[in-house]
Amino acid sequence: MIAVLKHNATVEQRDHLINWLQSQGLEVHISEGEEYTVLGLVGDTSRIDGELLESLSIVQSVRRVSEPYKKVNRKFQPSDSVIEIGGGVKIGGGNFCMIAGPCSVETHDQIIEVAEGVKAGGADVLRGGAFKPRTSPYDFQGLKAEGLRLLSEAKKVTGLPIVTEIMNIEHLPLFEDVDIIQVGARNVQNFELLKELGMTRKPILLKRGIAGTIKELLMSAEYVMAGGNEQVILCERGIRTYETSTRNTLDLSAVPVLQELTHLPVVVDPSHATGHSGLVPPMALAAAAAGADGIMVEVHNDPIHALCDGAQSLTPAQFAAMAEKVRKIREVIKE
Amino acid sequence: MIAVLKHNATVEQRDHLINWLQSQGLEVHISEGEEYTVLGLVGDTSRIDGELLESLSIVQSVRRVSEPYKKVNRKFQPSDSVIEIGGGVKIGGGNFCMIAGPCSVETHDQIIEVAEGVKAGGADVLRGGAFKPRTSPYDFQGLKAEGLRLLSEAKKVTGLPIVTEIMNIEHLPLFEDVDIIQVGARNVQNFELLKELGMTRKPILLKRGIAGTIKELLMSAEYVMAGGNEQVILCERGIRTYETSTRNTLDLSAVPVLQELTHLPVVVDPSHATGHSGLVPPMALAAAAAGADGIMVEVHNDPIHALCDGAQSLTPAQFAAMAEKVRKIREVIKE
Amino acid sequence: MIAVLKHNATVEQRDHLINWLQSQGLEVHISEGEEYTVLGLVGDTSRIDGELLESLSIVQSVRRVSEPYKKVNRKFQPSDSVIEIGGGVKIGGGNFCMIAGPCSVETHDQIIEVAEGVKAGGADVLRGGAFKPRTSPYDFQGLKAEGLRLLSEAKKVTGLPIVTEIMNIEHLPLFEDVDIIQVGARNVQNFELLKELGMTRKPILLKRGIAGTIKELLMSAEYVMAGGNEQVILCERGIRTYETSTRNTLDLSAVPVLQELTHLPVVVDPSHATGHSGLVPPMALAAAAAGADGIMVEVHNDPIHALCDGAQSLTPAQFAAMAEKVRKIREVIKE
Amino acid sequence: MIAVLKHNATVEQRDHLINWLQSQGLEVHISEGEEYTVLGLVGDTSRIDGELLESLSIVQSVRRVSEPYKKVNRKFQPSDSVIEIGGGVKIGGGNFCMIAGPCSVETHDQIIEVAEGVKAGGADVLRGGAFKPRTSPYDFQGLKAEGLRLLSEAKKVTGLPIVTEIMNIEHLPLFEDVDIIQVGARNVQNFELLKELGMTRKPILLKRGIAGTIKELLMSAEYVMAGGNEQVILCERGIRTYETSTRNTLDLSAVPVLQELTHLPVVVDPSHATGHSGLVPPMALAAAAAGADGIMVEVHNDPIHALCDGAQSLTPAQFAAMAEKVRKIREVIKE
Repeated sequence: MIAVLKHNATVEQRDHLINWLQSQGLEVHISEGEEYTVLGLVGDTSRIDGELLESLSIVQSVRRVSEPYKKVNRKFQPSDSVIEIGGGVKIGGGNFCMIAGPCSVETHDQIIEVAEGVKAGGADVLRGGAFKPRTSPYDFQGLKAEGLRLLSEAKKVTGLPIVTEIMNIEHLPLFEDVDIIQVGARNVQNFELLKELGMTRKPILLKRGIAGTIKELLMSAEYVMAGGNEQVILCERGIRTYETSTRNTLDLSAVPVLQELTHLPVVVDPSHATGHSGLVPPMALAAAAAGADGIMVEVHNDPIHALCDGAQSLTPAQFAAMAEKVRKIREVIKE
Repeated sequence: MIAVLKHNATVEQRDHLINWLQSQGLEVHISEGEEYTVLGLVGDTSRIDGELLESLSIVQSVRRVSEPYKKVNRKFQPSDSVIEIGGGVKIGGGNFCMIAGPCSVETHDQIIEVAEGVKAGGADVLRGGAFKPRTSPYDFQGLKAEGLRLLSEAKKVTGLPIVTEIMNIEHLPLFEDVDIIQVGARNVQNFELLKELGMTRKPILLKRGIAGTIKELLMSAEYVMAGGNEQVILCERGIRTYETSTRNTLDLSAVPVLQELTHLPVVVDPSHATGHSGLVPPMALAAAAAGADGIMVEVHNDPIHALCDGAQSLTPAQFAAMAEKVRKIREVIKE
Repeated sequence: MIAVLKHNATVEQRDHLINWLQSQGLEVHISEGEEYTVLGLVGDTSRIDGELLESLSIVQSVRRVSEPYKKVNRKFQPSDSVIEIGGGVKIGGGNFCMIAGPCSVETHDQIIEVAEGVKAGGADVLRGGAFKPRTSPYDFQGLKAEGLRLLSEAKKVTGLPIVTEIMNIEHLPLFEDVDIIQVGARNVQNFELLKELGMTRKPILLKRGIAGTIKELLMSAEYVMAGGNEQVILCERGIRTYETSTRNTLDLSAVPVLQELTHLPVVVDPSHATGHSGLVPPMALAAAAAGADGIMVEVHNDPIHALCDGAQSLTPAQFAAMAEKVRKIREVIKE
Repeated sequence: MIAVLKHNATVEQRDHLINWLQSQGLEVHISEGEEYTVLGLVGDTSRIDGELLESLSIVQSVRRVSEPYKKVNRKFQPSDSVIEIGGGVKIGGGNFCMIAGPCSVETHDQIIEVAEGVKAGGADVLRGGAFKPRTSPYDFQGLKAEGLRLLSEAKKVTGLPIVTEIMNIEHLPLFEDVDIIQVGARNVQNFELLKELGMTRKPILLKRGIAGTIKELLMSAEYVMAGGNEQVILCERGIRTYETSTRNTLDLSAVPVLQELTHLPVVVDPSHATGHSGLVPPMALAAAAAGADGIMVEVHNDPIHALCDGAQSLTPAQFAAMAEKVRKIREVIKE
């Protein structure tokens, strides 16, 4: 940890601060510059509150040079994590995973039909929302337990493992047959939920926060891993920016950045990121080209979508065509 | 609700869409332009998923003209809500409220001393964190139940009502003596928590999300009010932007914007927004000048802060000097 | 154009506004809703200042339904523009273009060596900065006229057309031998410069603003085209967001979004966007997969870069390896 | 300057880098940590390109500890700059300045009437646009030379000094009678224009960029001062964020932040920042309470504004009422 002191700090203030830092068990290396004094802090700096230190009037800035995350850190586990999802499906370490399905589970026929469609198109995992986080309390909140039951049926019929979102830890008993538990963008800093999921032994798919940083996403993964659950999948799903042409701004550079910092697999969700089905195939192909470990896309079969040939979800046929190209791009980049 | 159709929509596609909208119980008014067709949708549009509609390939854009929030809407309750906090303290409708106290409750002596200090300086409510949301699982997470007990003692000693953050609805029984339950920026879209707090009858202080929009804050308040709890206080605490000179960017224009849209009181937290104590007084005065219904600031008495005369918290004396000016500014703007 | 009036507008205010709009030559269609009145404005709305209209107290919101850009609009020119750069190189309409070269032109040997290196690796156009926009007045501002002369020599030696940035229209006479004139992110709303470039007949490469919207980029292109110069190339180069892991956030979804809105070619610059050479290849491949019409990357041969094997620029060998994969990805997506 | 080297740097790479840094005339202090090596660079680091250094593969991060700006730096000129505008009006060092007038100069009668109105209300300086930067080439671009002539007349009639925007240095001869030359948000990094204005001897008002950082604004001021013109006024005018309730997000904390870093005066423009006249008075009062050295607001007298009582501009009467409160708030904060 490095702390830069302001030029107008008095010797007395400086000595007070250094004494206090030493009393916290740290070694303090002092470099005097013309305008600034730089303190190098060596030892267990995790007990130091960097924000507090930076807020002191004599401190110009503070920078941690060692990452605050341990278990997710590639430095401490250089090889890729490979996560076994079930049904022989793996993700990470060269295993690419295509997750597809409807935004919400609506009816028995819908979920079965979409599940069969995406399986035929090459999907490895079925997605579908049962508990839906909605900005408005008056909007449809999902089929809940009934939705989970229907997902289970689709799993039985197709053999595809399933992923769906949890919003409340009290619902956990309902997720027994779920293969990957998803934490949505709005709950990715719900630390109480993360702690509880750290005590389960199911793969957890963590979506990046709506305006979450890459470091925050890693710290949220650290919460889950600190509890003992090492099966975490990270998901880039677009970030909030000033640009309104797309629902969010898909940050594909997050893929190689994350892969350098962590051994955990990284998937990309172009459907929620862009909000327009026409943008899903180019962004899914781009995600594969950027080296993502998987993609997660919305596929539908319902009439209001089908009607206009171009909602935010793809049809099964569009999915299959895209998946074919994704596989070819994977081959190119693996060469 | 207005939907603008693209110029390349076929008559067939358009008719399909219009039929579907009518089947949802809506009246559809059609205005043909040269390049676009505009559909005016009249009736109960709350059952229409605007994002889905907008994602259709023939739809250019969708705009709701009526707000999706009801109970928080000033249109339906023109007069300011006045919330009784306890101990004779009120907020809203011309009642200005100063909330002050330490970031975290640390010890008995600390909280009593700060509580007495801020009371002498003119504070109306004591703040202090017992459950702390920390980005890292390895950081201090607060004194928890013990912290709540110490806050209660400070309340007994000073008579000041208390506000503190909840992170998990299972902790609710511990909050019996708390006067205002705070929901932090990271949980403001934890809809499951909001629903539960809607069933309590205590005032709820909702912080704006880290990159939350004004509409999202109002929708979160709507979640609480929809449950029957009408005592909601909104808090502007800075938003995430590209600027790094301050921890967040305090959006003071949110104060008059919110006051036009809702009858709920709006307070401003300049301590977390800026992250530097030197910026707290100018921003607190600015908040009062902008017409806020209250301010919420950090005040400390501990040596590491005191040492350097200028952490992110003010001393009791600095708080008192600032509070004096805040009162004078209130007089100017009330004229 | 649609204007939504607030519910509290009086009949008199409304009639005043409608009369004024009609006096501007517009037809006004009125739809009365329960909470709002919607005015549909038909006719030449380009003379109406939308921001002014929206700022009126009785107006809730205003939306243009026809785009404010004409000449760049794909609606009025459905087929892709193909721009002839010189030396037989084209961009757009299926012609993919690789632009490569050093950040700054430094010496004769440097630019010749890099030019030969990138040509061997498959580059179509040589880039290199002669006039450099620097945030600090004390930083190196480029070799200026001498830099342009050296670029010309590299063009003579290799046959590669050249692209370089202009900062001041008075320098235009120096650009006679330049094949594509670049306008940097900081000058993309320097409308006086754009107007002057609209009067030249050289291809203009417009970089998206540092926090520019897609619409603003199109409007800047419109400035050039309105002057009669129809050869405009758009360049996505990352946008400013809160995320600090990369220099900017590369917005690859801008590629398909722009290609739907305009017939102009779109290239991607992953070097400036990310600021790290390790991120350039994955992002260049992703740009190709997203359907970009070209990429623009930094390539170097100098010792301080070479030293550490991994500055923000690639070596010629790294460029060649990447270019090979880019070509294969182009084949996949063109199938 | 501090450079943090990655843990996987080889001794050879490290030594190469250190040799190169020393060859640039710098002293290099090395601190070995467990995971990182920190290099402290002492000497004239202004010749080092920090972005290049940071982009090297063995470098984790680089931080300048001394500011890159000199002449604007309060460290080198502790006392406030006081700028004499003309007509006895000053700004800075306790002199508060109210700048008011129409968005655009439209007619002789309009500008005279508004000028007299704002003078009566307490304005110190008259503003009005003659050259208008418009996003669309088809929009009204201002009265240009004729607008400047009308401003001059208003100055003669009222005695108020005038401020207006320049977009092209070739227009400078027309600005002879102008008292403050404004550089708009879109040109604040048009370094060629800034250099030329540095050679004039008139006060320059620099607006913060649309998504400009505080440091960039200071660097732009440094460009003007480096040319020898020490009369620079900085203007906060809102920044681009994801929030759409206001046109931009007014960053009032920029006022005290700038005042700590520089001796130059800082004014606030709430009209452009918010885009709604109802938000101008609260934000102008807040700016005064935050300690700004002045405010700059739009005032109108034209019928389309007057019609609806509430465009983005205030009426002269609204301005006068607001100005009265601004003066009272100035008294409170100066105590």
